[in-house]
Amino acid sequence: MGNSQTEWFWSKYEEYRSYVNRYIENYLSNLDIPSELRNASSHLILSGGKRVRPVFVLSVSELLGGDIEHGLPVATAIEFLHNFTLIHDDIMDQDMFRRGVKTTHVLYGVSTAILAGDYLFSLVFGLVSRNYEGDEARFLTQLLAEASENICIGQAMDIKPEKYVENVDDYIEMVYLKTASLIEASTASGAVVAGRLDLVDRFKEMGRSIGIAFQVADDILGLVGDPSKTGKPVGNDIRNGKRTLPVLYVLDKMDKDEYDFFMSVFGNEAADEESVRRAINLVVKYGGIEYAREFMGEYSKKAMDVLKDFDDSDAKIFLLNLIEFIVSRDK
Amino acid sequence: MGNSQTEWFWSKYEEYRSYVNRYIENYLSNLDIPSELRNASSHLILSGGKRVRPVFVLSVSELLGGDIEHGLPVATAIEFLHNFTLIHDDIMDQDMFRRGVKTTHVLYGVSTAILAGDYLFSLVFGLVSRNYEGDEARFLTQLLAEASENICIGQAMDIKPEKYVENVDDYIEMVYLKTASLIEASTASGAVVAGRLDLVDRFKEMGRSIGIAFQVADDILGLVGDPSKTGKPVGNDIRNGKRTLPVLYVLDKMDKDEYDFFMSVFGNEAADEESVRRAINLVVKYGGIEYAREFMGEYSKKAMDVLKDFDDSDAKIFLLNLIEFIVSRDK
Repeated sequence: MGNSQTEWFWSKYEEYRSYVNRYIENYLSNLDIPSELRNASSHLILSGGKRVRPVFVLSVSELLGGDIEHGLPVATAIEFLHNFTLIHDDIMDQDMFRRGVKTTHVLYGVSTAILAGDYLFSLVFGLVSRNYEGDEARFLTQLLAEASENICIGQAMDIKPEKYVENVDDYIEMVYLKTASLIEASTASGAVVAGRLDLVDRFKEMGRSIGIAFQVADDILGLVGDPSKTGKPVGNDIRNGKRTLPVLYVLDKMDKDEYDFFMSVFGNEAADEESVRRAINLVVKYGGIEYAREFMGEYSKKAMDVLKDFDDSDAKIFLLNLIEFIVSRDK
Repeated sequence: MGNSQTEWFWSKYEEYRSYVNRYIENYLSNLDIPSELRNASSHLILSGGKRVRPVFVLSVSELLGGDIEHGLPVATAIEFLHNFTLIHDDIMDQDMFRRGVKTTHVLYGVSTAILAGDYLFSLVFGLVSRNYEGDEARFLTQLLAEASENICIGQAMDIKPEKYVENVDDYIEMVYLKTASLIEASTASGAVVAGRLDLVDRFKEMGRSIGIAFQVADDILGLVGDPSKTGKPVGNDIRNGKRTLPVLYVLDKMDKDEYDFFMSVFGNEAADEESVRRAINLVVKYGGIEYAREFMGEYSKKAMDVLKDFDDSDAKIFLLNLIEFIVSRDK
């Protein structure tokens, strides 16, 4: 992207984002509920976030001639669903910080945090059933119910990766369920609120491809990203033993000594920097990074291909830039 | 009820229950999900339960000429929603046993139990959106989303009763939200699946009244129930400091000495039996039990009144008996 196009892209992104933020803030502040529940449910969602899923809803809807206002309730529902999963994931992973602030369970206790997540989840379907009718309501409810089920199943796989994520295929399945299915629901919801039920399947495919490319980009950054940009130490994912795409690809390609060495570092939080660097080099040597980059490229191309059939428009250029940004980001 | 009518009632109850149980078992065993998630999500729901909410769905539907098979998906959705709340409540209350078996988080750990509840919750809306269409789907989604929101709000009040439950009105509000709103959704769903959208509001009112009467019956049993039947020690609710209807009614009626004595026993788990008995006597003396019985009678009458306008049928007699049973049970 040229400089002026970059500027244009980010100002359009910010425009979508502020529509969503205004709707969210207004919605949360009008809820007539105990203050404890309101504060705990609002804490994470009001402490930042890129709102990339709502942005997909609104920009796909705009591409297809939809009206922004009409997309806001489901865009918000999807952001609530996302934040519900984050609040519960943080309890499960015992994470203390997210988005630079303390996690909900650290601030409000585990019980209230469980409840805050449950409440956000219940608002998802309230938002949809109160703001849409007929086929629109049915499609949106189905998309969000499916995504919710998928996220839980993906999370169950992710809790025990040693049992459920043995190879590249398992991994893609897990990433689809846990991450891509909500982006799939976002882009497809954009088609629904634009009144284009005939395009739901194609925009599901687009979102699915974006979601998988998004996660693989993360995997690559976790291994060979620049720590000064990602904010994470070199080889963080190696020390944490994260079974990412590049790692799964090379595991059965190393010779025995290399494999034994790799496994002595992988998941070893006390591993020294030199060993971590050598482990990463093994992933590079056996083509793990290259494979992941190609894989990501294929999926981002698939996503962009869906856009080919549509006339040029601001929304189309925006979406192409957004997909490009997702796979080429350095943090 | 005469003996033969009692028998007839329970055999009809059991008939509804086994329809639901068969549907639930079949549904859960056909899910293609990680075994850990399936086991944790199924554990509580397959370990018993009265299925009173699904029974309300099916019997109201039958009263209005609906078909049992057609009501089963939403009856199951409501039972899933109920079990989701129980699994999460048990984590919040750190309860070890329910329905005579270990709770889900004790067996599978807190993380998997949170996830199991979330997953059941996500199935609720999947069941509705996949099995119903048009107005039916929209009404059912709205009823279940509203009930879910209410349950979370009620639970938030119940976590801090000292803050949110000061008087009888707060209490009824809390009971409505936490307990009655799901029974309201059950009876109203029965009207929806029978195709009687015009009767949804009246059957909501019926369910709401039943739910409140149901909880007040529990409150009375918790104070003056026969421990050999309820299975709970005398004055359990006094030792636990439970702000129930009879207690809230009398709190401002005692003189200062009585009040001070009552508060020294209320919520004091180490209180001796004699003190607990004296505390209960204070509730009786100031008309707490009498008030609660009248209150319950009014609400059960309200519920039964809804049935007056319908021609006599097996389903009508069954529902009248079921309401009667709920308020006159001794355990």
